Amino acid sequence: MAAAAQLLRGAARAAPALALAAAAGRRALGSAPPGLAAGRGGRRAALAAAGALGGLGLGLWRRQRAAVAASEEEEKEEEELRQRFMAPPVSGLRELRRRRRELRSRMELLIMETQAEVCRALAALDPGAAFAVDTWERKEGGGGISCVLQDGEVFEKAGVNVSVVFGLLSEEAARQMRSRGKSLKAKDGKLPFCAMGVSSVIHPKNPHVPTMHFNYRYFEIEEADGTKQWWFGGGTDLTPTYLNEEDAVHFHKTLKEACDKHDLKLYPKYKKWCDDYFYIKHRGERRGIGGIFFDDVDSPSKEEVFQFVKSCAKAVVPCYIPIVKRHCHDSFTPEEKLWQQLRRGRYVEFNLVYDRGTKFGLLTPGSRIESILMSLPLTARWEYMHTPPESSKEAEILEVLRNPRDWVH
Amino acid sequence: MAAAAQLLRGAARAAPALALAAAAGRRALGSAPPGLAAGRGGRRAALAAAGALGGLGLGLWRRQRAAVAASEEEEKEEEELRQRFMAPPVSGLRELRRRRRELRSRMELLIMETQAEVCRALAALDPGAAFAVDTWERKEGGGGISCVLQDGEVFEKAGVNVSVVFGLLSEEAARQMRSRGKSLKAKDGKLPFCAMGVSSVIHPKNPHVPTMHFNYRYFEIEEADGTKQWWFGGGTDLTPTYLNEEDAVHFHKTLKEACDKHDLKLYPKYKKWCDDYFYIKHRGERRGIGGIFFDDVDSPSKEEVFQFVKSCAKAVVPCYIPIVKRHCHDSFTPEEKLWQQLRRGRYVEFNLVYDRGTKFGLLTPGSRIESILMSLPLTARWEYMHTPPESSKEAEILEVLRNPRDWVH
Repeated sequence: MAAAAQLLRGAARAAPALALAAAAGRRALGSAPPGLAAGRGGRRAALAAAGALGGLGLGLWRRQRAAVAASEEEEKEEEELRQRFMAPPVSGLRELRRRRRELRSRMELLIMETQAEVCRALAALDPGAAFAVDTWERKEGGGGISCVLQDGEVFEKAGVNVSVVFGLLSEEAARQMRSRGKSLKAKDGKLPFCAMGVSSVIHPKNPHVPTMHFNYRYFEIEEADGTKQWWFGGGTDLTPTYLNEEDAVHFHKTLKEACDKHDLKLYPKYKKWCDDYFYIKHRGERRGIGGIFFDDVDSPSKEEVFQFVKSCAKAVVPCYIPIVKRHCHDSFTPEEKLWQQLRRGRYVEFNLVYDRGTKFGLLTPGSRIESILMSLPLTARWEYMHTPPESSKEAEILEVLRNPRDWVH
Repeated sequence: MAAAAQLLRGAARAAPALALAAAAGRRALGSAPPGLAAGRGGRRAALAAAGALGGLGLGLWRRQRAAVAASEEEEKEEEELRQRFMAPPVSGLRELRRRRRELRSRMELLIMETQAEVCRALAALDPGAAFAVDTWERKEGGGGISCVLQDGEVFEKAGVNVSVVFGLLSEEAARQMRSRGKSLKAKDGKLPFCAMGVSSVIHPKNPHVPTMHFNYRYFEIEEADGTKQWWFGGGTDLTPTYLNEEDAVHFHKTLKEACDKHDLKLYPKYKKWCDDYFYIKHRGERRGIGGIFFDDVDSPSKEEVFQFVKSCAKAVVPCYIPIVKRHCHDSFTPEEKLWQQLRRGRYVEFNLVYDRGTKFGLLTPGSRIESILMSLPLTARWEYMHTPPESSKEAEILEVLRNPRDWVH
C-alpha cells in the first residue's frame, strides 16, 4: 500500500486537472450505456463498453489525456495507473487522491490492484482469450468494474469484479449485512453506508484444474450519533472436481502463511469458518475443500485488519496460479468431464440457495445481477440419484467434502 | 373417483388378508434400502428398488400375491390396481380401503392415478426409455414414489413424484406451509398434519418442445381443539424455449375448460396468480408462459375444491401431450439448443431462489432431496451478459416472459 499511497500523493500534487477530467470521463461513460447501469444491459452495450475501454481501459484514458493536454509528467503517471488497473476506479482518481489517508481509499486501491493482478495472471495462461471489461454505475450511488473471460482455452468462465457502492440503508438492510446481525442506530431510519469489494470465481475447463473463488470486502456504516461502524470480510477457497493432495496442501499452506504473518490463530479459525460457511446442508457436503473465510471482522484495529486483508489478497495469485499451470494440459476422459459438470451443479446449488452475498445481492434494488451471477458456471448438470462407485476417484473427493481435512499439519 | 371408490369398496369386502399383506410388503420394502429413506441413498439402491418393483411394481405385487394365496377375485382386483398405479400407495391399500370415504384417501388415489397416467403417456412417446420407480419412506412418517426417466430420446429428464407425509409440525412450520400465513392453535406446541401431492417437471430434449410442470397437493392440520384445517394447492404451467402461439393457446384453453366446469372466475384468477408466482424478480421475467396456479384454497367446500383439483389433474395429459407429439421430431440448430440451455439456467434460478416448495423442502428435516431437486434440468448454462438480437425468435419469447399475454380471448 505504501507505493500506492506515494503514487497518489505524487499525483495529487502534480495533476488536479487530470483528476478532474478522469472524474468527468467516468461520468460520461457511466451515462453512455444506460442498460449497464440498470443492471440488464445488452451484450452489445457491454462489449461496446469493453471495446471503448480497449480491454484495459485504454480508450477512456486516451480520451481523458486528449481533453486535458496533459504534461509529460501527467502522462507518465497516467500510464503507470493504466498499467495498474483494469479501468478507472469507481470513486474517481481525484477523490481517491484527496482522501488518500482514509482507509476506504486505500481499500479501493487494493481491490483495484487485486483485480488487475488476477486478471493478468489468468490472461497469461489463456492467451487466445481476453477479459471483457464492463464499467457500470449504480443509480443509487457508486458502481463497479466487471472483468469476464468466457469460453477460453483454459477457462470456461473467469470473472473478477470490483464494486464500490454507497448511499443510504434501512436499519433492517444494515442488520442483514452483518453476519452477527448487530443493530445500528439510524437517523430518520436511514444509515449512510459504503460497501466495496473484489470478488472472483474462476471455472476452468479441465476437470483436473479446480474452481477457485475469492472475495475481499469492506463496509462502513454511519450511525445517528456520527459513530462509524466498519468491518471487513473475505476469503479464498478451492473447489476441485478431483482431489489432488499436493494441490490442496499448496493452497492451504499459502493461505496459512499469509495469515500467520498477522496472528497464528487466524488460519485455524478462518479455515474452520470456511468449512462451516460453504456447507450445502441439504447434501451434507461442502462446496469444496475450503481455504479461509471470515466476516464482520472489526478488531484488533482498522489498520491491522486491513493489513491482514491485504496479505490475503496478495496470496490469491500464488495460491492458485501454480495449480492451474500444473494441470491445465492434463488429459481427461468424458467421464471426468461429466463428474465436473455434476459438481458444477452443486456449486450452483450452494450459490443460489445459501450464499449470503448472492442472496443479499439478488434482493438489493439496483444491484447488478449479471455481475452477481457471474459466479455461476458456464454449464452445469443434475442427474437424479447419481452416486459414484465406492473407492472411485469421485467417491474420494466426496469423502473430503463430507469430512473436511486438515491440510497443513 | 366413483370407479376408484367402488373398486376400493369391493376390495375391502373381499380381501382383508391381501390388504394386510400389502401393508407388510410395503414395510419390508421400506426398511430394505435405508439409504433411500434417509434421502441420500445410492443409485444402486434406487435402481434395485426400481428393479424389485419391476417398473410398475410387479415384483412386490407378485410377492404379496404368493404370500396370501389369493383367490381369483383377489387376483383380478390386484391386477386392476397394478395397472392403475406405478407402485403400491404410501398409506397401504388396507388403510385406504378402510378410510375410503375420507378426502385424504380419495386424494391419495387421485395423485396415484395422475402419476400413472402421466408416466404412461410420456413413456409411450419415448419408447426406448423407461421410468425408474423409487419407493421411499420418511422416518418421521409417510413416504413417496418417485418416477424418473432420464436421458431418453424425447425427454432429457422427466420426473413424476408422489409423496404422502404426516406427523407433527411446529406452529412456525405450519404457518410457513400456508401462503397466507394464518396462525394455528397447537396443543403442546405441536400440530398433527398430513400433506400429500403429485409433482412433476418434464424437460424435453428438443428445444421446440416446452418444459412442463404440474403439482396438485392437499394439506390437513389438526388444531388443539380438534378442528381440522385443510386446504388445496396446485397448478400446471408451461416453459417454452421458443414461443409457439398455437401451443400456448391450446395449453391455456385446455386449462380454462377444466376450470370453467367449476366456476368461470377460476381460470382468470389462477392464470394471474401463475404469472405472479413464477416471477424471477432479479431478471424481471417469468419462468415461462404460465398456466394456472393456486394455493391455500379452502372454499367453497372440501368436496367442491377436490372436484376442481381432480379436473385440473385430469387436464395434464390433454394439455401437454399433444404439444410434445407435434414437436418432438422438429429439426433444430445448435444455436436453438444453446438458447434452450440458457433458459434452463433461468429455470434453475427460479427453482432454487424463489420456489416455495423447493425452499420448504430443502429446509425440512427428513425430506427427500433427490425427489425435490428432480425438478432441475439435466443440463443448464449461464453466459455473462447474454442478450438476444432484437426481433429474433429469442427476443420474442423474452418479450412474452416480461409481459404475459392473455391466450384465450
